[in-house]
Amino acid sequence: MAPEADLKVLAFDVFGTVVDWRGGVAMEMAAVANERHLTVDAGAFADAWRSKYLPYLNRIRSGEMPWQVLDGVHRASLRELVTELSLQSLTEADLDRLVYAWHHLPAWPDSAEGMSRLRSRYVLSTLSNGGMAHLVDLNRAAFLPFDCVLSTELVRTYKPDPRVYRLVPDLLAVRPEQSMMVASHVYDLAAAAGQGMRTAFVRRPQEWGTGKTEKLDISVDIVADDFLDLASQLGA
Amino acid sequence: MAPEADLKVLAFDVFGTVVDWRGGVAMEMAAVANERHLTVDAGAFADAWRSKYLPYLNRIRSGEMPWQVLDGVHRASLRELVTELSLQSLTEADLDRLVYAWHHLPAWPDSAEGMSRLRSRYVLSTLSNGGMAHLVDLNRAAFLPFDCVLSTELVRTYKPDPRVYRLVPDLLAVRPEQSMMVASHVYDLAAAAGQGMRTAFVRRPQEWGTGKTEKLDISVDIVADDFLDLASQLGA
Repeated sequence: MAPEADLKVLAFDVFGTVVDWRGGVAMEMAAVANERHLTVDAGAFADAWRSKYLPYLNRIRSGEMPWQVLDGVHRASLRELVTELSLQSLTEADLDRLVYAWHHLPAWPDSAEGMSRLRSRYVLSTLSNGGMAHLVDLNRAAFLPFDCVLSTELVRTYKPDPRVYRLVPDLLAVRPEQSMMVASHVYDLAAAAGQGMRTAFVRRPQEWGTGKTEKLDISVDIVADDFLDLASQLGA
Repeated sequence: MAPEADLKVLAFDVFGTVVDWRGGVAMEMAAVANERHLTVDAGAFADAWRSKYLPYLNRIRSGEMPWQVLDGVHRASLRELVTELSLQSLTEADLDRLVYAWHHLPAWPDSAEGMSRLRSRYVLSTLSNGGMAHLVDLNRAAFLPFDCVLSTELVRTYKPDPRVYRLVPDLLAVRPEQSMMVASHVYDLAAAAGQGMRTAFVRRPQEWGTGKTEKLDISVDIVADDFLDLASQLGA
């Protein structure tokens, strides 16, 4: 059966899959550091900040911490990082600016064009840990042609909670197998498959600036080099 | 204070305000009637169907009927109407087609252009009784540039339940007064104002094919002749 048979909805992970969080955060940090006359490895700063992400979300999913929208997670983890890296000379306005950098991240070069092709044939939705307002900002800043914004905020938990993936059939009037999760992260695709969704792994070798893609150790329906390749494989 | 001061989000009613339900439904009914060799006043049919809408939703809001998505309301009220008008020769496929007509209604001539102007300055969201999948279909069919789809389905009730209007500040990270409800229906605007939103009444004299706009008997922030006029009044 062709991969696109009876497929109706593509649900996209956003951070890393559609947009380059590392490049965007590092650029903002480099600008802030320059203004404050600080010497900071901006790429390493972005990596260190992002590395706090999954542990934080796990504490929220486990109930150890109350749920809060992703901006709150970014702010709390940034405060930790500022202490660890002895960057206390950063002002509150600097911290606001860094948290807000996550709202206007650059898309990967193929994202908008690939999505425009895909949208001609499929409904495109976000399915992201970013909050609703956050995702709206990102989509507007990067001109991303999503039909719909779905966020883990709607179920007040985070990936890979199964309730996140059930938003797609529950709200978009499709059976799970008529939808496909598109992500550069295996844990996300494994959880989506667990709820009956199809899966597309997209290689994003520069997500961490290393040139190396995440190891794909599960079975997926499609492996794509970028969104243009995904569009071609899905007949769009 | 200028009407646009600190305004960030425009929340749009859809049926009647953005799209011409009467024209779209009548066109589909005329086509179906022609194929079945039936004589039906298609405009009157659309009016009669729509007239069952608010009573149905009131029964759901009051708890007399269980909540169901708008497609279900349309289907149930269509079955009543078919009996009342002695149109039992319509097939199940005909009924499906008529229910689905509500998913691809024509936009008013000014809608897409006015919204494109408004979107350059404001976040545009639906805030409609249509279900999420339904609104996605409508937006795609009419090329409507919404940033976000919000539906009463997210709170499993219908307008004018206050929970509907609270979706805007709750999910889009604004204070109520930084948002504006845009509608051609007074009951909707009154309920939005009750939750602290600003209000724009848009005249849609052809909503019921009569040339007469709804009587505006409440105070609103803006009265506009169409979306182009609304854009001009909001500096977009």
